Amino acid sequence: MSIKLDAVGKKTAPIKHKYAWKDVVLYALGVGAKADELDFLFELAGPKVLPTFAVVPSFGALLSVTEALGADLAMIVHGEQKAILHRPIPPSGELSTVAEIKGIYDKGKGAVALVEAKTVDEKNEPVFDNWFTVFVRGAGGFGGDRGPEPIKADPPEGKAPDFTVSEATTPEQALLYRLSGDLNPLHASPEFAKRGGFDRPILHGLCTYGHAGRAVLKHACGGDPARLRSFAARFAGVVFPGETLTTMGWKVDPGKWVIQTKTQDGRLVLSNALAETGETLR
Amino acid sequence: MSIKLDAVGKKTAPIKHKYAWKDVVLYALGVGAKADELDFLFELAGPKVLPTFAVVPSFGALLSVTEALGADLAMIVHGEQKAILHRPIPPSGELSTVAEIKGIYDKGKGAVALVEAKTVDEKNEPVFDNWFTVFVRGAGGFGGDRGPEPIKADPPEGKAPDFTVSEATTPEQALLYRLSGDLNPLHASPEFAKRGGFDRPILHGLCTYGHAGRAVLKHACGGDPARLRSFAARFAGVVFPGETLTTMGWKVDPGKWVIQTKTQDGRLVLSNALAETGETLR
Repeated sequence: MSIKLDAVGKKTAPIKHKYAWKDVVLYALGVGAKADELDFLFELAGPKVLPTFAVVPSFGALLSVTEALGADLAMIVHGEQKAILHRPIPPSGELSTVAEIKGIYDKGKGAVALVEAKTVDEKNEPVFDNWFTVFVRGAGGFGGDRGPEPIKADPPEGKAPDFTVSEATTPEQALLYRLSGDLNPLHASPEFAKRGGFDRPILHGLCTYGHAGRAVLKHACGGDPARLRSFAARFAGVVFPGETLTTMGWKVDPGKWVIQTKTQDGRLVLSNALAETGETLR
Repeated sequence: MSIKLDAVGKKTAPIKHKYAWKDVVLYALGVGAKADELDFLFELAGPKVLPTFAVVPSFGALLSVTEALGADLAMIVHGEQKAILHRPIPPSGELSTVAEIKGIYDKGKGAVALVEAKTVDEKNEPVFDNWFTVFVRGAGGFGGDRGPEPIKADPPEGKAPDFTVSEATTPEQALLYRLSGDLNPLHASPEFAKRGGFDRPILHGLCTYGHAGRAVLKHACGGDPARLRSFAARFAGVVFPGETLTTMGWKVDPGKWVIQTKTQDGRLVLSNALAETGETLR
């Protein structure tokens, strides 16, 4: 397997994404929102929009730019993700995203493509940016640069987390989450999952990310989406639908939280995760 | 509270409903479909369409015709439902429904409106019909006819059911189900539910109906949607999201099944339910 190294620098035309409140609610349920988070699930309450929804309107642009890599979907794994929020996401509208492959790096076993996606609203005002890294298994060893080292964000040694949230995902979690746009059959079909080397379909990394983002929002932002500035994480391990996710947060500095998510058996699935928070000032 | 008796005979213009496979899957998840029912949840398997999806494309027409009743949404409860399938429902398309209020009856405490909705495809071929009865609490006592007696379908005395299926709904079941079209806030908002006289939001009767329909499909039709001819039920009691639904079926004649659904504490919630099945011949 190889990927097209000349994809670096390729930029999409602005890709539009129109959405309505139902899409916002569908996403929230897809990342496990509970009935007591009604403001995020009920149109007469807005709905409020989970900040990690940022990955949805930009997904088409990500897909379009990663097609330029020429990689098999079954071999692609999301490596890292950072969403930078410029302001709360509106509950409906038409957003426009330009994505660009900023670099392709050689990690030995695989290759990593770094994609930046910038999303603006109808008035061309920035709403959020996303940084995605796409890991292509089996595509490394082409003698390229290893690229920048990933973000390091370890919990302070010996300190108990400032918050801990445990939530079971359902066996149908990936089947629900994928309705928000990432239709990779790796997350639905046992046959396709086997082709990708997994015993059964796996949960989307971004679904785990959304679960962790809800925990950050609740415990580090008082439930107010306007207070989350950014959320970055590395996808450190595979989650199967039905597993329980435990997200822990350590406040390491004012407005800075180190986050980790583990499964019920202690496997680290989100690592080197960092959330930046602030006051509601926008 | 009163309703407009002159609504009888009112017919909608053909009301179109365009849908895609995602709507079919969203509905299936809304009525509790599980990961092992993948054919109903995965586009590369069709998806197959649950026969009770019939209530979704016709819902706009039902809403339109019941608006003519002039009743408060908080006081409306679905009384009975019958879906008659002429053939399997396509996984996407544009269907067209004409609904008519066939009668308004005086039940003392409330009034009952009987609505017929006939749905055809792009070629004007019948796909399914629905009979809905809408119970309007507090709107009876106007001296009208009591109307036809409801269908009687009791399980044979002393006979154990031929199948029993127990499934827990989730606390978010109504919030997910409502994305398929019935946005009555009675199923989402605690305040609105209180106004309707309930302690908390209740599950849509048609969500329970969909759960029961899945059990019928699996155990009386070998999982083949083409084998279900009709499914009628009375909504006998309130279900709260999170409760467990147990559906039982008795084969009373060739192709005839009496169905009941109870909650975990034995309350009957679907009664006088009858499913008609046949061979796959269409």
